[in-house]
Amino acid sequence: MGKERSEKERGGGEHSKRNLFVSCVVMNSCAAELKLLLTALLVICSVATLFQILPSRFTISASDLRFCISRISTSNTSFASLNGTPTSTPTMPPSPSPPSIRKDQVADNGVIKRAFNPYGSAAYNFITMGAYRGGLNTFAIIGLASKPLHVYSKPTYQCEWVPQSSSASNSTFSTVSYKMLPDWGYGHVYTVVVVNCTFSEAVNSENSGGKLFLEASTSGGGDRDFNITDRFEVLNESPGDINTTLFSSKPKYDYLYCGSSLYGGLSPQRVREWIAYHVRLFGKRSHFVIHDAGGVHEEVLEVLKPWMELGYVTLQDIKEQERFDGYYHNQFMVVNDCLHRYKFMTKWMFFFDVDEYIHVPQKNTIKSVLDSLSDYTQFTIEQMPMNNKLCLSADYGRYYRKWGFEKLVYKDVKKGIRRDRKYAIQPRNVFATGVHMSQNVAGKTTHKTEGMIRYFHYHGTVAQRREPCRNLLNVTEINFENNPYVLDTTMRDLAWSVKKFENQMIGPKLKNTRQ
Amino acid sequence: MGKERSEKERGGGEHSKRNLFVSCVVMNSCAAELKLLLTALLVICSVATLFQILPSRFTISASDLRFCISRISTSNTSFASLNGTPTSTPTMPPSPSPPSIRKDQVADNGVIKRAFNPYGSAAYNFITMGAYRGGLNTFAIIGLASKPLHVYSKPTYQCEWVPQSSSASNSTFSTVSYKMLPDWGYGHVYTVVVVNCTFSEAVNSENSGGKLFLEASTSGGGDRDFNITDRFEVLNESPGDINTTLFSSKPKYDYLYCGSSLYGGLSPQRVREWIAYHVRLFGKRSHFVIHDAGGVHEEVLEVLKPWMELGYVTLQDIKEQERFDGYYHNQFMVVNDCLHRYKFMTKWMFFFDVDEYIHVPQKNTIKSVLDSLSDYTQFTIEQMPMNNKLCLSADYGRYYRKWGFEKLVYKDVKKGIRRDRKYAIQPRNVFATGVHMSQNVAGKTTHKTEGMIRYFHYHGTVAQRREPCRNLLNVTEINFENNPYVLDTTMRDLAWSVKKFENQMIGPKLKNTRQ
Repeated sequence: MGKERSEKERGGGEHSKRNLFVSCVVMNSCAAELKLLLTALLVICSVATLFQILPSRFTISASDLRFCISRISTSNTSFASLNGTPTSTPTMPPSPSPPSIRKDQVADNGVIKRAFNPYGSAAYNFITMGAYRGGLNTFAIIGLASKPLHVYSKPTYQCEWVPQSSSASNSTFSTVSYKMLPDWGYGHVYTVVVVNCTFSEAVNSENSGGKLFLEASTSGGGDRDFNITDRFEVLNESPGDINTTLFSSKPKYDYLYCGSSLYGGLSPQRVREWIAYHVRLFGKRSHFVIHDAGGVHEEVLEVLKPWMELGYVTLQDIKEQERFDGYYHNQFMVVNDCLHRYKFMTKWMFFFDVDEYIHVPQKNTIKSVLDSLSDYTQFTIEQMPMNNKLCLSADYGRYYRKWGFEKLVYKDVKKGIRRDRKYAIQPRNVFATGVHMSQNVAGKTTHKTEGMIRYFHYHGTVAQRREPCRNLLNVTEINFENNPYVLDTTMRDLAWSVKKFENQMIGPKLKNTRQ
Repeated sequence: MGKERSEKERGGGEHSKRNLFVSCVVMNSCAAELKLLLTALLVICSVATLFQILPSRFTISASDLRFCISRISTSNTSFASLNGTPTSTPTMPPSPSPPSIRKDQVADNGVIKRAFNPYGSAAYNFITMGAYRGGLNTFAIIGLASKPLHVYSKPTYQCEWVPQSSSASNSTFSTVSYKMLPDWGYGHVYTVVVVNCTFSEAVNSENSGGKLFLEASTSGGGDRDFNITDRFEVLNESPGDINTTLFSSKPKYDYLYCGSSLYGGLSPQRVREWIAYHVRLFGKRSHFVIHDAGGVHEEVLEVLKPWMELGYVTLQDIKEQERFDGYYHNQFMVVNDCLHRYKFMTKWMFFFDVDEYIHVPQKNTIKSVLDSLSDYTQFTIEQMPMNNKLCLSADYGRYYRKWGFEKLVYKDVKKGIRRDRKYAIQPRNVFATGVHMSQNVAGKTTHKTEGMIRYFHYHGTVAQRREPCRNLLNVTEINFENNPYVLDTTMRDLAWSVKKFENQMIGPKLKNTRQ
């Protein structure tokens, strides 16, 4: 239709021209009109010419798209202009067809050359979550990439910095760009990628603004014949945006908690207990970043709200990532985003779950322990696994009013079992992180923290909303379900102080919270 | 640019109109011109209107493409018109960007709603190799699909038949469509899919032509928010194309060999021996389909040519599939294509490799054995593993002139080892096939073929071009490299007959073939 229409239009234009010309000659006095008409004709012809470079059909059809696409992908264009027509419609990678169906061909020697025709798209090349400065000349980009691309191919990444002002220097490319795959091979359709890009010198040092683009190349992963490079904006700094003192200043917080993806029907009461306990533990110079992958329903939000209002909690709504099938609600992406997003905001960063309670044995404080570990970039924390059913007979008749860490007092003491550890880092020296520890750190890691710091783990208590206590016991040791347990009231003994602390901080507004 | 330009054009048009109108009033005699000009203006305005529905930039840029794409993919359009503008340029799935970068948003309650921006494409949804009729109302489509799509999602397939003549009935959809994944979970970026589509009644029964389309839906695999359906032509029947008697006639061949992907530096002499041996074994009513994934280099082609000229061999050049990373040169796709392509051409179809030699012990012939197995849809064949280094002292000084199966005479007799089997099928009852056996058959399978038929396996002799003999022995039994071997001259004893047969069939033209 495009071609037909443009030819018709051109024809129409010529027709008017001829007739007008005749008229003008007859009238002998229409120079002005002729000039104007010629201008109009020029416009029409320009338009017709532009039509020529358009797809052969004007309605938006598959063949047009194929045309657009073949122009783009055969020239392997990178996508420089991302600033046009913003709309809020999300798109899936389109399903273009190749420009034509390639047919089998029989060669002169009788050999049948088989054709293979590819269609559509099954996965994105890259999905961005965040991009953050790591200093004057270095950035981290956190996202998901197609997993088989990384397993069977070697996709590469590079960054480009484009200054906002055209009078500034030209765009520059990162000199060192490497990727980290921090999810230990767990991904599904997608795997987590942290790209580190470093430039040979400071970028945006005039603080006049600019954009960081990531160029993600497939290296022929989905089709050996094409090394497609997708180029897209990952960071936009407005003039005056950067505060370069940030990178060397004392951080705002001493302790920042990066939570993993929260999902499912979480117990509001358990979350209430967890946050009150940890705000008390970590104190005024602490902050908690909670990631809601669907688990922070209305009642959970209620228990977080008072702490959000006091500035202790930031809630990140990451439900959108559920679109992209990675490992467990993309938790590895989430913790890496948190690492880089808050890298310069805190001295220490903690990674553990909301059914886990950090504990510093008496005589020490969290400060004294962490000060003694300050030579280490990372330390890991030993687990105290607590039974999630066994309670005390002493709580008979009122256990449902007790807090979780108050009533669940039997500790699993089975030996010879490798138990997960959790960890904390000094984030300025860390480039990517995991769930149980980081493998991309500068500096030392220690696991020798027994007696200094540990965590009590109430597995399976947060993701359910029913009363945990099933068996009430009056013993100090028991073998239950083939496992030895001992009574450990360390946490129980803190319950009163935590409750009092909560009341001091936010009043009694959460007193009717349900399990 | 598009919008700016179109506004400018409209502005220009209005400007001409106003001036012309003034001129005309003054001249008071330009009704004809005015009419013409208004026509021209109408055209300009139409064009300007069309521009409105176009991307905001007129040069083909990423934002245009995003525009095209968002229109297509958000409406989840299937690609009906595949007949426009064929060009031969191959395309990779394009790397479109979403229509805009979605930004993080801070809600009134302080929650940060994170945005995730996907870019590009890492794998095709589907890649076709072949589509074949399986009868009056049923078809098989053989191809590759994105592996994580099948592992983590449930992509679905449906067929549509579109008659060629518009006077014929409307297009119809398959009533039963199911997929088989015959590669045992081996895929890489891609996995092999055989789609079976059956219609409620015969399609193209008037033999007036038509097209089969496959609709491949991702079921949200790469992005939960979108169930993209790619629709593409997989089979085109011209009027008069189908011969319906094919499905019930006696097949052209008794035995057809479907070879797996040949790759690497194959030995021309070993291939020469293999083909001569098997043409002699299977006889006049046999055919060999060889798949060249890069292994049929010039010298190998030389030894196949005489047999191609006699009509015994069809060579399928499948090198193009190397673009798509599946398991071992996509061998599972290749054998399934062969199955369906030649389904009605042969009574029996064999699947084994070019270092394997089918052997029927004396007193029987291949015909008598297969006749006795005719109640079975499938039977498997026991392996006789032959050492690929040990030769006979008797061949000293001339072993390099002996044929492979003539000089490699030591059979591995280690017990208790599960050895691969190969197999043959009656393909009309088979829907998909594997490398070692088919799991999608109607009818019986038997493995009890010992003593009736077997294959000698000369592992590692075809993919190398150096002389295999390393040790010359003069014993009937030996323990070599911790493995027991016995002398077995079954195949050696046939060498003379095979050489004579080759000479009768194609003359001495291959006598100078090199290893």
